[in-house]
Amino acid sequence: MNYKMIFYIMGQILKVVGLCMLLPILVGAIYGEEHVVTSFGIPFLVTMAIALAFTFRKPKNNEVYSMEGFISVAASWITMSCIGAIPFVLSGEIPSYANALFETVSGFTTTGATVLSDVESMSRSCLFWRAFTHWLGGMGVLMFVLAIMSSNDARTMHMMRAECAGPNVGRLVSKSNFSARILYGIYISLTVSEAVLLMIGGVPLYDAIIHACSSAGTGGFSMWNNSIAHYGSVYVEMVIAVFIILFGVNFNLYYYLIIRKFSLAYKNEEVRTYFGIIIAATAIITLNIMKLCDGAGDALRKAFFMVASTITSAGFSNTDTGEWPVFSQTLLLLLMFVGSCAGSTGGGMKVSRIMIIIKTGIKELKYIVSPRAVATVKMDGKPVERDVVRGASSYLILFVMLMSVSLLLVSLDNYSIEESLSAVITCMNNIGFGVGRFSPSGNLGGLSAFSKIVLCFDMLLGRLEIYPLIMLFAGRNSK
Amino acid sequence: MNYKMIFYIMGQILKVVGLCMLLPILVGAIYGEEHVVTSFGIPFLVTMAIALAFTFRKPKNNEVYSMEGFISVAASWITMSCIGAIPFVLSGEIPSYANALFETVSGFTTTGATVLSDVESMSRSCLFWRAFTHWLGGMGVLMFVLAIMSSNDARTMHMMRAECAGPNVGRLVSKSNFSARILYGIYISLTVSEAVLLMIGGVPLYDAIIHACSSAGTGGFSMWNNSIAHYGSVYVEMVIAVFIILFGVNFNLYYYLIIRKFSLAYKNEEVRTYFGIIIAATAIITLNIMKLCDGAGDALRKAFFMVASTITSAGFSNTDTGEWPVFSQTLLLLLMFVGSCAGSTGGGMKVSRIMIIIKTGIKELKYIVSPRAVATVKMDGKPVERDVVRGASSYLILFVMLMSVSLLLVSLDNYSIEESLSAVITCMNNIGFGVGRFSPSGNLGGLSAFSKIVLCFDMLLGRLEIYPLIMLFAGRNSK
Repeated sequence: MNYKMIFYIMGQILKVVGLCMLLPILVGAIYGEEHVVTSFGIPFLVTMAIALAFTFRKPKNNEVYSMEGFISVAASWITMSCIGAIPFVLSGEIPSYANALFETVSGFTTTGATVLSDVESMSRSCLFWRAFTHWLGGMGVLMFVLAIMSSNDARTMHMMRAECAGPNVGRLVSKSNFSARILYGIYISLTVSEAVLLMIGGVPLYDAIIHACSSAGTGGFSMWNNSIAHYGSVYVEMVIAVFIILFGVNFNLYYYLIIRKFSLAYKNEEVRTYFGIIIAATAIITLNIMKLCDGAGDALRKAFFMVASTITSAGFSNTDTGEWPVFSQTLLLLLMFVGSCAGSTGGGMKVSRIMIIIKTGIKELKYIVSPRAVATVKMDGKPVERDVVRGASSYLILFVMLMSVSLLLVSLDNYSIEESLSAVITCMNNIGFGVGRFSPSGNLGGLSAFSKIVLCFDMLLGRLEIYPLIMLFAGRNSK
Repeated sequence: MNYKMIFYIMGQILKVVGLCMLLPILVGAIYGEEHVVTSFGIPFLVTMAIALAFTFRKPKNNEVYSMEGFISVAASWITMSCIGAIPFVLSGEIPSYANALFETVSGFTTTGATVLSDVESMSRSCLFWRAFTHWLGGMGVLMFVLAIMSSNDARTMHMMRAECAGPNVGRLVSKSNFSARILYGIYISLTVSEAVLLMIGGVPLYDAIIHACSSAGTGGFSMWNNSIAHYGSVYVEMVIAVFIILFGVNFNLYYYLIIRKFSLAYKNEEVRTYFGIIIAATAIITLNIMKLCDGAGDALRKAFFMVASTITSAGFSNTDTGEWPVFSQTLLLLLMFVGSCAGSTGGGMKVSRIMIIIKTGIKELKYIVSPRAVATVKMDGKPVERDVVRGASSYLILFVMLMSVSLLLVSLDNYSIEESLSAVITCMNNIGFGVGRFSPSGNLGGLSAFSKIVLCFDMLLGRLEIYPLIMLFAGRNSK
């Protein structure tokens, strides 16, 4: 194991996180919030000191394999969460460190689950930092490092794999720092477009930035206690719904559109399925909730927004789904697991992984019927590599195993099974809201510090897709 | 496809079911219940007529492959459930056919979920039939046919595979009708032993038979509204707990004991894990519920009984687990999924399948770390065949898929998600009780006829382990 290189990569990541803390300091300066000098200044200096110590000397041996990639990503995400939580504590706005850590992990992992009952009482700089963690965590901070790193090292692909979501990634272009740049370029363009469109709808600049960052990472943090409903505007809701859906699309698609390979973009089975699911679920739920709404238009609006918010794991809400028929609620629950596309900022198991899993199930049935027939799992018309197929099944297995263990640990708090399960599901899928006491209108503040730590791990497991964290804690023994 | 042979096998199975109906007629004669002449007499004649028509001529081509085995088992189980429900309707004790069908499927699949709120008002013959369906379904009616069939056809192994539970079965001895005889021999001996032990504890003969049949199939139907608690006897509870655990053991183990291969019996990894889980879960729950009980003895008694009842999917209860800490409830919920050993009468996913799945997950992690290392999944010290490993993963995939679809369909009844989910889980794992309105003290009678049919399929899917039913409905297209 190349430990020196792991620390070097961690240092690079922390440098980015540290520099990002200058943004809330700027926000604080604009709004005359004096506490930013200490609450963000101190963690900024600490982070930069650690970062510089780690990156002081570039290791001569810069070989990085998947193991190093996984471990440096996992260690960096944990470190940056621990550091990112400090401003909330120092500013006195989230006095408990466990709560601040939960909020920060929820931010970076774009979960959007909160322990706060009154976000409106927070300072503008802290609210900005809270939303900005969504933006940074959405595309991934290591990806950002790769985008700005000078070396043209093809081996960095190993690291991209560790942070990027979904079963098959990193095939964009051969030079990964180039493709990281493309990804961030698309990401920034979409975020800016959304902010501009929100401002056209009458949303103030600050609000527009907060909600654009929050939807870019498909996170769900808002600056208002009643979230998007604050604006009471169909236009704002629709802009956000459309953009979170766009942020849930595999970013490969945008790349294909940019290089004008429209046929490749059109053929993408995952994206077509993703849109198909959104349209079908919206139609079914619209019909199902029609009676409860003011006509078809209102039903369609609520159904579309909630489907978009759930499948992308953004976790915004414009209505209380607890009043919906249980059928619609169940459909939303299943959409949480499906999640958005691989290579997007959305959460869940990812559409392509679900597709591979379902196709594997069907293949297995065919095999049982006639064992001699060799059936292959295909995506986009091409056979899927055996490793990818096996990986998808294994992911489901590990997901279920870790969900069971987490459920058992969280159940020690003696909330109902339903509520404990929903807290675990919402965190592992990076959704941000559950049911019962943890419904969109509630928050997770009542849980014990122990449960919060468990859920922090669940959120990281969901965002980093299990493997990196397990490597970090168990990896060394298996070599 | 050899349709003639499928009908012939179905005919043999129906003959057994028909002849079994003579038993409740006998019970009715003893207790002077006149309705048995029509309520059991008519279905007896109908079943025998169909059975004789199907078996009138033995097909010349008696080749049977897995496809025929799966389909005849699935078709037989559906047919015998439809016929087995008739006595309940004709006797007027369960007037609705949907309810009667649910009760019968719940019986044959050894689920033990009930739609009845007052079982004590039923006649002795119907109560006997209800418990006897557990006994017959537990080891499997096709297995019974194989045990009495004269032909020494090794190909019948294909059929045993279709009805027997768990990932790897049928390796007992090469002659399957011989091994079917051994299995039924062990099964009958254990059932009789339990009935005798219950009678020693002061339980009347009729009651002892009912509860022995019910625990043999790890079903859970009782003749009392408050189940086992009726007797208020620790001795009775412990006899039942020990026997359901014994019926949850892989029957191969008893065979090894009979042929004095003690080392083989001792080495069996699945059985050791099964006992390990029971001991560990009992210890943990005892500590967890201590405060709520009258001392350690009482806590141990309740914990042991409920762990045994849950892991074997028997579904008897001697206490209201709803009052337990959520941690213990969650542990029981996980035990439901684990289930008992392969090749037993218990339900759930089966210990060996869970073991293979967990080992596959661990293997996959090792593979991610060092792709060159070839790790194999081992059971009992020997590598598991690749097909078995793949089958276990696929089973989990299909299980989750079918659970999702069922949940969606049952949610149309607008019970809470928690209750709908618990109904589906309890039926697919053949447990027999859920939570909320469907807790051990409640019943599933309030569900719509549509949901009951869905749950009937779930119970059959759980008992026959998915494949046979899917073959029946989709098999013809895939060849």
